[in-house]
Amino acid sequence: MTHRPTPGPDDLVVTYAVRATPATIEDRALDLCVEQTVEVTEPLWRDPAIAGRTLGQVEDLRDAGNGRFEVRIRFPAATVGREVPQVFSVIYGNASLKNGIRVERVEPGPGLARALGGPRHGCAGLRGLAGVPDRPLVAGALKPLGRSVRELASYAYALARGGLDLLKDDHGLTNQAICPFEARVEACADAVRRANRETGGWTLYFASVTGPLDQVLSRALFARAAGAGGVLVSPLVVGLDVLRLLSRESGLPVMAHPALAGAFFASPDHGMSRAVMLGTLMRCCGADLVVFPSWGGRFPVTRDECAAVDRALKEDLHGLRPALPVPAGGMTLDRVRDLVAVHGRDVVLLVGSALYERSPDLAANVRHFRSLVETAVANAPR
Amino acid sequence: MTHRPTPGPDDLVVTYAVRATPATIEDRALDLCVEQTVEVTEPLWRDPAIAGRTLGQVEDLRDAGNGRFEVRIRFPAATVGREVPQVFSVIYGNASLKNGIRVERVEPGPGLARALGGPRHGCAGLRGLAGVPDRPLVAGALKPLGRSVRELASYAYALARGGLDLLKDDHGLTNQAICPFEARVEACADAVRRANRETGGWTLYFASVTGPLDQVLSRALFARAAGAGGVLVSPLVVGLDVLRLLSRESGLPVMAHPALAGAFFASPDHGMSRAVMLGTLMRCCGADLVVFPSWGGRFPVTRDECAAVDRALKEDLHGLRPALPVPAGGMTLDRVRDLVAVHGRDVVLLVGSALYERSPDLAANVRHFRSLVETAVANAPR
Repeated sequence: MTHRPTPGPDDLVVTYAVRATPATIEDRALDLCVEQTVEVTEPLWRDPAIAGRTLGQVEDLRDAGNGRFEVRIRFPAATVGREVPQVFSVIYGNASLKNGIRVERVEPGPGLARALGGPRHGCAGLRGLAGVPDRPLVAGALKPLGRSVRELASYAYALARGGLDLLKDDHGLTNQAICPFEARVEACADAVRRANRETGGWTLYFASVTGPLDQVLSRALFARAAGAGGVLVSPLVVGLDVLRLLSRESGLPVMAHPALAGAFFASPDHGMSRAVMLGTLMRCCGADLVVFPSWGGRFPVTRDECAAVDRALKEDLHGLRPALPVPAGGMTLDRVRDLVAVHGRDVVLLVGSALYERSPDLAANVRHFRSLVETAVANAPR
Repeated sequence: MTHRPTPGPDDLVVTYAVRATPATIEDRALDLCVEQTVEVTEPLWRDPAIAGRTLGQVEDLRDAGNGRFEVRIRFPAATVGREVPQVFSVIYGNASLKNGIRVERVEPGPGLARALGGPRHGCAGLRGLAGVPDRPLVAGALKPLGRSVRELASYAYALARGGLDLLKDDHGLTNQAICPFEARVEACADAVRRANRETGGWTLYFASVTGPLDQVLSRALFARAAGAGGVLVSPLVVGLDVLRLLSRESGLPVMAHPALAGAFFASPDHGMSRAVMLGTLMRCCGADLVVFPSWGGRFPVTRDECAAVDRALKEDLHGLRPALPVPAGGMTLDRVRDLVAVHGRDVVLLVGSALYERSPDLAANVRHFRSLVETAVANAPR
């Protein structure tokens, strides 16, 4: 091709694993360049005004063995823009509807990364807010859906009294009639504040704000006014751009929940890697913390996959702040050492049901959990 | 189990295909009831206050052969609520993160269906707006990204002059600097209005409003003020609830684009059926028209799958209006008869590049396309 867009700092580079043969891979790679951008037949995109401006460009293409090729495509800034939905669409919009195309790596240029913004608080900011300079953070969940506002608030009080660093709503607590958003958030934020006053502690309550598109920000602002220390949201359920919106407009730390993300992980040769979806994308768009299924719990995922998510949340990325991994999904009190071994000290250890099951004294359960974390860290290499 | 929530009109019933053995299926089905609702261990959900209130209930379970079971689960209104994100999350949020679970059917109760609302205009409303009482509607796309506002507006004028019923922006036209939203929509809406005035026709221009969560509605309102006849949005890219928001708040007909939806179709035993995602969900949430990859084009999909989407868009569903199928993805002028054979007359025939390739006279290309449709319909059984 003679006409190519000039590479620039606002471009987006995406690496796909593509199922193909040596005879078909060049066509498949070109097809991706077209499908994700101009969506026209060759006679129409051959025009230099298009081929030299908005068409994706294959930067690299190599045989990865087993009938797969790694294809690195540069999408020009003119096509990608700076809005999250279009970025998401360029990465995988129409490509999702084909076969054998898996997103393995997403690399925004420095200008695009800065425009997306990344975490507002990030790991260091969160540590400052929680008053935990060094050790892993200890987190619990308010649950289950079905408890009244009063019951959940009493749990919140006891869990905060025990000294949790973070306490999050279950992601299924949204705005049901049996436990409406405003009443729940007001009561739970109040319970946590009362416990903090009594203990001198800093438990941060993360209110679930998953809800209608035109209410999610107002819920976050309500939560902030009520004294919540952060918000929890399911970006794939609400819309990925909700991370940017909440991060920029609420000022609160934002915790992302992986609900629905598994649709992208169902096939080994189609979809998206966990590291891209739960790591790079969530972080770039503004998540300060990302909840994801951990190995050894009730979800099928490997230790290596979790380590890859961890790297994507923390690696150098044009100055974006690192985000905190929150491995979860059936974590029990005996998993502390395992998790610290993979994630190091910059991790949030989230225990769900186990904090309720150990004894009826929730505060004592939290104290026990914290002592396990402290022991594990004391024995771990720095 | 002795305690069960009382079934009601606001419940949500979801049928999953679950990979299991006769020895494991009951546990897997129960696990779904728990995972999609209360997310706690058995000692915690056994409490009658939970089991009798918010827990999902297996209504039916049958061996479907080949290591799969069909599991029908009723989710109580107390859990589901009436907000789109929570509905989506209950259907597949955490389940997506497991293996071998595919959503095969979604049945909102009558109260829930009415609350979701469905299409505002629907098939009949669209026909009224386009002035096409009976035949298939004829549609084209403004493309490609890379053309200037002035060029796109000149295409819009010519295509409307030729007599398209609907003219949609390509879904990749969002708000890029080379073709900004407001300038593009104003110029294209104006070009279509001018052509309509000259022909006495009724071409409806659907403006792409995919964009930031907090701008998508204002873009739709801008488009309406500029004279657009509808909006195009990618619900999985922006957030599924955008359909409800645009349908209820903009007043314009809403066309849904399937970008990203393919992530849900990648595996035969995990994800979601096309009929659920592109049919039931899009329609329930408010899409008046749904674009989806058609068989025989450039996307891998079968004729039967397209027919199933068609049924889901049109079948009786507690009084919700039927939505119009827009089979697409490399449709050419010779596919008219095929498409009408599957979809009947209530279909939008969308041709992309082919409308630009046939000759440089776009209006003549449209006239040719319309004549093909009219011939195909004249020869088809009513």
